[in-house]
Amino acid sequence: MNLVNEYLKIRKYSEEICEPLQTEDYVVQPIVDVSPPKWHLGHTTWFFETFILKPYSAGYQEFNEDYNYVFNSYYETVGARVIRTDRGNLSRPSVNEVYQYRAYVDEAMTRLLACAVDEKLMELLLLGFNHEQQHQELLLTDIKYILGNNPLFPAYSRNWKDKTDGVSAVDAINISEGVYEVGYQGDGFCFDNELSRHKVYLQDFSISTSLVTNEEYLDFIIAGGYQNFIYWHAEGWDWVKNNQIKAPLYWNEINDTWFNYTLHGLRHIDFKAPVTHVSYYEAYAYASWKGMRLPTEFEWEIAARQFSWGKRWEWTESAYLPYPGFNKAPGAIGEYNGKFMVNQKVLRGASVATPEGHERLTYRNFFHPHLRWQFTGIRLAK
Amino acid sequence: MNLVNEYLKIRKYSEEICEPLQTEDYVVQPIVDVSPPKWHLGHTTWFFETFILKPYSAGYQEFNEDYNYVFNSYYETVGARVIRTDRGNLSRPSVNEVYQYRAYVDEAMTRLLACAVDEKLMELLLLGFNHEQQHQELLLTDIKYILGNNPLFPAYSRNWKDKTDGVSAVDAINISEGVYEVGYQGDGFCFDNELSRHKVYLQDFSISTSLVTNEEYLDFIIAGGYQNFIYWHAEGWDWVKNNQIKAPLYWNEINDTWFNYTLHGLRHIDFKAPVTHVSYYEAYAYASWKGMRLPTEFEWEIAARQFSWGKRWEWTESAYLPYPGFNKAPGAIGEYNGKFMVNQKVLRGASVATPEGHERLTYRNFFHPHLRWQFTGIRLAK
Amino acid sequence: MNLVNEYLKIRKYSEEICEPLQTEDYVVQPIVDVSPPKWHLGHTTWFFETFILKPYSAGYQEFNEDYNYVFNSYYETVGARVIRTDRGNLSRPSVNEVYQYRAYVDEAMTRLLACAVDEKLMELLLLGFNHEQQHQELLLTDIKYILGNNPLFPAYSRNWKDKTDGVSAVDAINISEGVYEVGYQGDGFCFDNELSRHKVYLQDFSISTSLVTNEEYLDFIIAGGYQNFIYWHAEGWDWVKNNQIKAPLYWNEINDTWFNYTLHGLRHIDFKAPVTHVSYYEAYAYASWKGMRLPTEFEWEIAARQFSWGKRWEWTESAYLPYPGFNKAPGAIGEYNGKFMVNQKVLRGASVATPEGHERLTYRNFFHPHLRWQFTGIRLAK
Amino acid sequence: MNLVNEYLKIRKYSEEICEPLQTEDYVVQPIVDVSPPKWHLGHTTWFFETFILKPYSAGYQEFNEDYNYVFNSYYETVGARVIRTDRGNLSRPSVNEVYQYRAYVDEAMTRLLACAVDEKLMELLLLGFNHEQQHQELLLTDIKYILGNNPLFPAYSRNWKDKTDGVSAVDAINISEGVYEVGYQGDGFCFDNELSRHKVYLQDFSISTSLVTNEEYLDFIIAGGYQNFIYWHAEGWDWVKNNQIKAPLYWNEINDTWFNYTLHGLRHIDFKAPVTHVSYYEAYAYASWKGMRLPTEFEWEIAARQFSWGKRWEWTESAYLPYPGFNKAPGAIGEYNGKFMVNQKVLRGASVATPEGHERLTYRNFFHPHLRWQFTGIRLAK
Repeated sequence: MNLVNEYLKIRKYSEEICEPLQTEDYVVQPIVDVSPPKWHLGHTTWFFETFILKPYSAGYQEFNEDYNYVFNSYYETVGARVIRTDRGNLSRPSVNEVYQYRAYVDEAMTRLLACAVDEKLMELLLLGFNHEQQHQELLLTDIKYILGNNPLFPAYSRNWKDKTDGVSAVDAINISEGVYEVGYQGDGFCFDNELSRHKVYLQDFSISTSLVTNEEYLDFIIAGGYQNFIYWHAEGWDWVKNNQIKAPLYWNEINDTWFNYTLHGLRHIDFKAPVTHVSYYEAYAYASWKGMRLPTEFEWEIAARQFSWGKRWEWTESAYLPYPGFNKAPGAIGEYNGKFMVNQKVLRGASVATPEGHERLTYRNFFHPHLRWQFTGIRLAK
Repeated sequence: MNLVNEYLKIRKYSEEICEPLQTEDYVVQPIVDVSPPKWHLGHTTWFFETFILKPYSAGYQEFNEDYNYVFNSYYETVGARVIRTDRGNLSRPSVNEVYQYRAYVDEAMTRLLACAVDEKLMELLLLGFNHEQQHQELLLTDIKYILGNNPLFPAYSRNWKDKTDGVSAVDAINISEGVYEVGYQGDGFCFDNELSRHKVYLQDFSISTSLVTNEEYLDFIIAGGYQNFIYWHAEGWDWVKNNQIKAPLYWNEINDTWFNYTLHGLRHIDFKAPVTHVSYYEAYAYASWKGMRLPTEFEWEIAARQFSWGKRWEWTESAYLPYPGFNKAPGAIGEYNGKFMVNQKVLRGASVATPEGHERLTYRNFFHPHLRWQFTGIRLAK
Repeated sequence: MNLVNEYLKIRKYSEEICEPLQTEDYVVQPIVDVSPPKWHLGHTTWFFETFILKPYSAGYQEFNEDYNYVFNSYYETVGARVIRTDRGNLSRPSVNEVYQYRAYVDEAMTRLLACAVDEKLMELLLLGFNHEQQHQELLLTDIKYILGNNPLFPAYSRNWKDKTDGVSAVDAINISEGVYEVGYQGDGFCFDNELSRHKVYLQDFSISTSLVTNEEYLDFIIAGGYQNFIYWHAEGWDWVKNNQIKAPLYWNEINDTWFNYTLHGLRHIDFKAPVTHVSYYEAYAYASWKGMRLPTEFEWEIAARQFSWGKRWEWTESAYLPYPGFNKAPGAIGEYNGKFMVNQKVLRGASVATPEGHERLTYRNFFHPHLRWQFTGIRLAK
Repeated sequence: MNLVNEYLKIRKYSEEICEPLQTEDYVVQPIVDVSPPKWHLGHTTWFFETFILKPYSAGYQEFNEDYNYVFNSYYETVGARVIRTDRGNLSRPSVNEVYQYRAYVDEAMTRLLACAVDEKLMELLLLGFNHEQQHQELLLTDIKYILGNNPLFPAYSRNWKDKTDGVSAVDAINISEGVYEVGYQGDGFCFDNELSRHKVYLQDFSISTSLVTNEEYLDFIIAGGYQNFIYWHAEGWDWVKNNQIKAPLYWNEINDTWFNYTLHGLRHIDFKAPVTHVSYYEAYAYASWKGMRLPTEFEWEIAARQFSWGKRWEWTESAYLPYPGFNKAPGAIGEYNGKFMVNQKVLRGASVATPEGHERLTYRNFFHPHLRWQFTGIRLAK
């Protein structure tokens, strides 16, 4: 791996994602979970500056010290920061300044990577790459939210290629009871929450090889799924009623016809495509209505070798918890994953928004159960 | 088992718990999690009336049909209900009327139980017994909250016997890696969430035979545990800051001395007693500060045969999730446990407030991670 | 005036108002604006103890020093206090203890009043009398709210005499443009906000001699008054929509028939009676729908000599502002009225809940525009 | 008056105000009271399109029908609209599109104004001019808020000329008791809330000829004005505590020195300049601390002929209420002023942000008492 090339390739892809945007699209934050695209561009840059350039590049001159305050996401170790809800209040630094910041840091990184890279630096570098890729995924989902909740429904890009063109026929795999091994093993990169590889005991289970489609999900809607508490968790039912939820995010019923906001703009719903932008509550309720359930993350990891995945992030029944022997790294890097291990659900797989090469069988994504601005989907088990 | 005697004994104990109360103490609801004592007395009665007397006792005449609205807790199947936050707004039915309601239902139950009891009825009856015992536990914790948050700090009863007089010397048990069985097995009563018995794989672990004491917890406070984000989950840290948490619930610092509100009134802290009334966030942070962790519920269940427990409900690291093959019962009874299986943590053991005979090795209690009005405690593992 | 007799008569009336209550009714606080009856009984007692007995009665021994914290309403000068929203969380002091407190203070007051009463003391005494009468009015309205929002709709008292049995035929008085004098003048008691008497300039106006009836108000409802923003202030319209307001407080539509919760329990609406329990927003919208307006407080004061009033507190168009030369008294007594002179509307007149002799032509009551748990009514002008 | 020239001059000035902005500055909405600059530019354009072009210009083709939804501020008559809190969530229409919208409407207006303009159209036109001027004032205050709350404190424009360079020596005017006339009279434009001219009775009063300076206000801060409830309304005191208010908006204490964010950037406080960006609560508390009070709006209107004003909008003690005989116009235009006449305070005068020629002796501005993002100031009376 040529480190400079790899670095520049990843960095460039973040900017490519933003190419179809107008300046104004970089700035807004319609809900707290969505960050302004320019913030993502700045934050990933700040990550390299703070954790690599400042400690490892002798004589490195910070681009602008105020950016620490602006672009720190949640690292308490590193100091004060703009509170998350306020990211959309900042018109400055401007989009141009953020791109200048990127160029400045990229140049310094290029110089640094031309020199010898020791193991510790290599580790941080890989973390920085993967961190930027995580934000690339978020960039796409956040851009979709920004545009898809605009009353003008502007398209993101007519060239956008959704990797998912329908779902294969429904089938199921049976896995037998027994002891299995889960967790990452190997020499490549993984996040600390995938370590260490360990044994788990699984019961007999069966899991679908296909994702639930829009058509199947529409049956749930038509059958009154959103009106019957019996399928829902108590908290899910409160969420449905308080937010008057009636369909997945981005579904719009206009004159009795269902439309879906996609990155191409408002479109008739593609009924053969996998349902997406559902919360865990909805995934659970749908499974419940079908007399089935969601897989656990370990069932998923064991079975996934046998089916095709990677189109939607898939909700599992598992809570996001530490693996045996999990240990937070010292310092700010230790804040990466561990401190979020409560009240969240694990998602497995990857999605159309995941940058190529970033997906992994042992990858553990996690979100609060009510969130649905990600490209989430449903796979059934029993 | 003489069913009538057993029924009356359990029912009477609820009223005994309330004996030291003044009429006014039965009525208030200082926080949403606490219910007015008279509501507990009415709700447990409504449970027998709704699920046993109405379907099984021919010609049974409802005491007051409005009570369905007043005393339904969360059963959507059974109809509309007073919202939980409003229970403390109801001065009527009066305490006297609630006791009349109890007497009326007890008489009808006594008549019914004198006749043949079939298996289905027996099952509901046992559920009713255990349901009332769960509310006995809540009665004590809610009464403690009502009195302990009153500026006059009235004592509940000078005769109250706390079963816990200190904690034995700290020791640890080591358990070896392997496949173990967890979950309820046997002919006795258990809740649906304890079924079915199944295998799990545990890693090597070590677990303390003692609970953390007030003295040990004070060390955490003195060491600045509440001021250092590093020990906390991100959500726990927000909870600490937003609520200005500085010590367990009921600890009051008066002129530089720590006092504890107990059921005997305000007392100097007993430093040898187990710490109690801490949230999961605090339990986790304490463990983190000690370089240890909380046990999972399965570790606890396997290890607990070897130590004494039952003084405090013990927070575990496990999220409250369904066991393999878990199925909700049809109808309102199916709402008992399953619909709460998200965003909660499992507690294991029992506490000083648990009625005798209600505790069980496989018992799974569950609360949201920020709650601490229960008699919760901390046991460490690693 | 025999001061002791007068004192005891006023004090006794507060307790008479509470006679029909059950102990539980004394305790609850269903909304922040309503205080528990036992709090009113305690607070009025604390007023005499704090402002008269402690400074004027040598050697007076406080009943219970914690009561300062419990029964202070809003006097910052006097120290910390239970926050208003928490009054309904306090089961103690018990109702019995509050009555003992009253007896204790009454005895001390009786002793004090048997001695010479100087001018300063006399002034405070009259303030105490009027303060207690204000709380008598609140006692009735708060009790009505507590019982009228209970799902069992218990009656307060079958003997309650509503002074208002219908409304006389609608007529109007014309008043000519010119300079008039308003504000209190004389030797009797008045609140500081009624001083000093001063000149105002009024335009020609006409004012109804009758209050709007339930029947007239029902016409507004039927005509869609609550669905048409055109009649409402922007804030009033938000209030209607956010709270789904469709009729006056205490109106209940059951099977297409309108019922009204009264102190006798749930009753068919008396269509000849004046409409009551409406907010300022509703009074304004009704007037707007009629092509009329509410009188200003000065128009009311000048015209009221010519019509009968005292059945309902009447909303005026006037904001609650200081009269020319208004000055707050020094110390805690100065917090009585002045600090509320923003964002409130003046009500004039008196109501069925006003104790005899407490009403006055120049009396200025005041509430926030959305409140309607008082016996408020509507008089039209143009 | 050449109408086309006048129209274009006013329209151009809105764009001139925005000239120093970067695209990003047009988009954000840091608090609900502040609107994004591009929204102001679009909304004022929509006003001419909706109320003039569509009804009066035969064959006029709407620029984009979705803009009705985007740019309607609060006109219920005209249909649904983006809720106010969401204006900052809209990246589209882009700034360029908004300028195209302006050009399109300006061209249509130019054509229309070249033809005969009847009286009704003239009236609407003047309303449109004045409406745009009101938004010019808001543009400046909103821009100041957007930049002044950015952690980078960017300057708006180094050329900005603040008309106020200090305050003349403090002096006072005495006005004698009697009947005076207030309200607009004449042939020029005025808002409906200034009509009709009518008599009021004023008491003797004295009013300062100067505004309170930063230096004088600092004395209040140093004297503990923000720590002593005695000077504040109860609601004001809650506001101070809940928001931890310690100084006027834009004052920043950095290393024990007071700085002020101005349109030139962060500057040392100019102690001779009038204090600005204070709420009504602060203005009242300051006056209270000085043993004085704020003038009423009528006192101000009578006295202002004798002093220089127009640097700061001046809080008065008057609530915003209808003048005698006030009538809302029919249709959407009737929503302009009347529906806000509750819970607001009148401000008199004009400010550095007021476009030339827009100020008027009888002008009634109004804001809620806690707001301070306007260029508000304090004048004392007694």
